[in-house]
Amino acid sequence: MTAASTPGPAISGTTRVYALLGDPIAQVRAPGLLHPLLARRGIDAVFVPMQVAASDVAPVVRALRQVVNLHGVLVTVPHKAAALALADRVTARAGLAGSVNALRREPDGTWSADTFDGDGFVRGLVETGYDPRGLRVCVVGAGGAGSAIAVALLDAEVAEVRLVDTDAGRLDTLCQRLSAAYPGRVTAATEPHLADVDIAVNATPLGLRPDDPLPFPVTGLPAHAVVADIIMKPAETALLRAADERGLTAHPGEPMLNHQLDSYLAFFAL
Amino acid sequence: MTAASTPGPAISGTTRVYALLGDPIAQVRAPGLLHPLLARRGIDAVFVPMQVAASDVAPVVRALRQVVNLHGVLVTVPHKAAALALADRVTARAGLAGSVNALRREPDGTWSADTFDGDGFVRGLVETGYDPRGLRVCVVGAGGAGSAIAVALLDAEVAEVRLVDTDAGRLDTLCQRLSAAYPGRVTAATEPHLADVDIAVNATPLGLRPDDPLPFPVTGLPAHAVVADIIMKPAETALLRAADERGLTAHPGEPMLNHQLDSYLAFFAL
Repeated sequence: MTAASTPGPAISGTTRVYALLGDPIAQVRAPGLLHPLLARRGIDAVFVPMQVAASDVAPVVRALRQVVNLHGVLVTVPHKAAALALADRVTARAGLAGSVNALRREPDGTWSADTFDGDGFVRGLVETGYDPRGLRVCVVGAGGAGSAIAVALLDAEVAEVRLVDTDAGRLDTLCQRLSAAYPGRVTAATEPHLADVDIAVNATPLGLRPDDPLPFPVTGLPAHAVVADIIMKPAETALLRAADERGLTAHPGEPMLNHQLDSYLAFFAL
Repeated sequence: MTAASTPGPAISGTTRVYALLGDPIAQVRAPGLLHPLLARRGIDAVFVPMQVAASDVAPVVRALRQVVNLHGVLVTVPHKAAALALADRVTARAGLAGSVNALRREPDGTWSADTFDGDGFVRGLVETGYDPRGLRVCVVGAGGAGSAIAVALLDAEVAEVRLVDTDAGRLDTLCQRLSAAYPGRVTAATEPHLADVDIAVNATPLGLRPDDPLPFPVTGLPAHAVVADIIMKPAETALLRAADERGLTAHPGEPMLNHQLDSYLAFFAL
């Protein structure tokens, strides 16, 4: 329970408050990364992590909308899909993904939402030297983050997105929605087939907890493949370690988050 | 919207979160006073001001109780009476006052509440040299803070507490409850009669806003009287200025808050 060495924002009755909802919450890194950016800009705002169970997300967000000095909410695992229904208005990409990770109060009191996961993921890949254009990408996990990443990859002109999820119903819904928007470039499977894949992405929460199983085996991937994880903490997940041990390229979660920080600040006009 | 110069707590996913509910909220000073104390103790916790209208307090507190890493709530004007009903258990003094200003989550998941306004007010008076023992004190405002202050004054053995409020129903309820507990020492009136009063206390929110009228006229008070205000911001209210101009002793809100800070930290086990 010791305070970290870097201090955070001064907080007063005039501070703009933003909540960050997730479950679990201990691993979230956005507040620690956003607060120094806000301090450098001289902006009086704070991001407050809140651990909320899935069954409580709707009533908690509805209550937070009544907090006058709370101007927005960031949403992380596992609430990104549920949060879409809590906004009055979402972007086209968020609607396609079926998930949002940021909601803000508009001047008229309504709430708008967008998702920055996919854009952040693709920009992180490109910046590291792995432009996915024309490649075949397997996205494991068709939840909030996975669906947003799939949309951004398709917008970045990948040849094919192969969606994998153990929940056949959720998988089918997302596959149908994306196939309609990106015909002939989306496939789906409940088991990962990885032999012809250029990039394999873990978009499940597996790896957050130390005793989690691997989200997919790295043994079936071709030697040139990139294995990407969106988990931020631990920085090196068991999946990335396994990929590294097999000689594959391991791409961690950090670049995706770093590329989202500016998007968050712009979205919240901070 | 510029950040204050003194930094606040580092905030991460492991930070203990406390909310501070009021309406308005811009004037609250507890976060800025508590955060340096927490930093000195090396405690990873944050107090987050939240402006919530009276009609929204119950649903917002109910929702905040579902936030797993939110361990307690401070309550200020005008929610102190409403907050009593939102706890599972209150102290005897809070029950007598009919108001609470701090609620905490217990290990079993229930919520306990207490009020520190009265104790803080009396300790602030005594420390400044105005021991109220044996004196006649008029408390204007029979809301959450006023009722807590009345209870603490009676516990501090004042000769009489004269309660004043324009709401005759609220006044009568409090007077009956306190008279039963402190027989013969509590009176009530809808208009302040101040000619024989040693200490007159403003426990209304009047003075928070620049165009508020005075909560009571200082002209009727005896020359030795102390005029106390519980408003923290502005530090010098129009009431205190008027008292000072008449040559009376003006006692500001700050000592009451300062004496509550340690009580808050002890209550929350911080």
